[in-house]
Amino acid sequence: MSSPANTITTASLLERLNWRYATKQFDPERKISPEDWSALEEALVLSPSSGGLQPGKFIVVTDPAIREKLVPASYGQAQVKDASHLVVFTAKTNFGEADVDAHLERIAEVRGVPLESLAQFRGMLLGGIVNAMDAPARQAWAARQAYIALGNLLTSAALLGIDACPMEGFAPDQYDSILGLKDKGLTSVVICPIGYRAETDAYAGLAKVRFAKEDSVIHV
Amino acid sequence: MSSPANTITTASLLERLNWRYATKQFDPERKISPEDWSALEEALVLSPSSGGLQPGKFIVVTDPAIREKLVPASYGQAQVKDASHLVVFTAKTNFGEADVDAHLERIAEVRGVPLESLAQFRGMLLGGIVNAMDAPARQAWAARQAYIALGNLLTSAALLGIDACPMEGFAPDQYDSILGLKDKGLTSVVICPIGYRAETDAYAGLAKVRFAKEDSVIHV
Repeated sequence: MSSPANTITTASLLERLNWRYATKQFDPERKISPEDWSALEEALVLSPSSGGLQPGKFIVVTDPAIREKLVPASYGQAQVKDASHLVVFTAKTNFGEADVDAHLERIAEVRGVPLESLAQFRGMLLGGIVNAMDAPARQAWAARQAYIALGNLLTSAALLGIDACPMEGFAPDQYDSILGLKDKGLTSVVICPIGYRAETDAYAGLAKVRFAKEDSVIHV
Repeated sequence: MSSPANTITTASLLERLNWRYATKQFDPERKISPEDWSALEEALVLSPSSGGLQPGKFIVVTDPAIREKLVPASYGQAQVKDASHLVVFTAKTNFGEADVDAHLERIAEVRGVPLESLAQFRGMLLGGIVNAMDAPARQAWAARQAYIALGNLLTSAALLGIDACPMEGFAPDQYDSILGLKDKGLTSVVICPIGYRAETDAYAGLAKVRFAKEDSVIHV
């Protein structure tokens, strides 16, 4: 089998993953171009999720007044207002049968297959996820899916030369309230300011710290 | 500021993310080259995590006898034995002060700074993570970090033209037992067979299903 098109070299990939870092100071004047931003939104939507169920939405906050309000809800961290864009990853608070059916209807639509042909898959999703977990466990499951999307976004952004700062240090309750998420059946899980590093960010020059490969990877 | 080196085009990125899919049938004869595998392990190690704390390890299972044993612990799913490699993402079961200190010692070593200069950061990590959560919450937090690494691995593999199948459908207790994880203070969180799709995998040709961008992304 021939190699697929558009692959990159291992050296380029690793250079990009080493280039990225949790950006502490963003250049507030430098915005992500509409073309790049559109691609990153598309990348977010293309993130894998368990059963393909996509049990959360991505909130993109660009309104400066709202960004300003989110700073005190983020322990004063200025990245939240200074970065070009802010992505708030959310999880559905009560993922259930109706969400499974919405996904199945979308499969039927996109693939042009009858809904009935998905009955077995429906049973698997209901049995394995909806009925196998209580509400808090389902929300925790949905939250974990958001972290796949976060990992995808961080790598995708680095490949486009765009900086980001994954952040758990914020108050989800306050975010939910400021962004009106509760009424949408969503709760904030993790956030990611994204844009371009300021030339003054001292963190950009620090050596990346990881445990040695032999301490992180166990071969069996 | 000029564009960083080694970035790719948005079209290439999106082509790769559309190319990937949850591979159901791997070609059991086709192995990932040592060079590509080494890069993917490096990519795993470079995955971001909260506070840089890396609260889990990556178990790479290649032993055919163990892979065979894992199939019944994975609801019979053959990807677990047929793919070139199997990655088991784990979380530390009792992440605590000693883990924070191991990370700080590594920072001091890699960056050549005195441990004492990290005292404030230490307080933040202990206050924000170790002492802010009970043991189950800390394990859930560690598990979420594994999902960032999973997201990174899936995107990284796609960029190298390598297939993967993220899987939650397995029995963590059985995995922990078969792989001896409990004694290592680890528990399995999510798994990912990785290799090359079989030419007979009917799933490869199906249209990718995602909710429409306007249903997944909310602009504020």
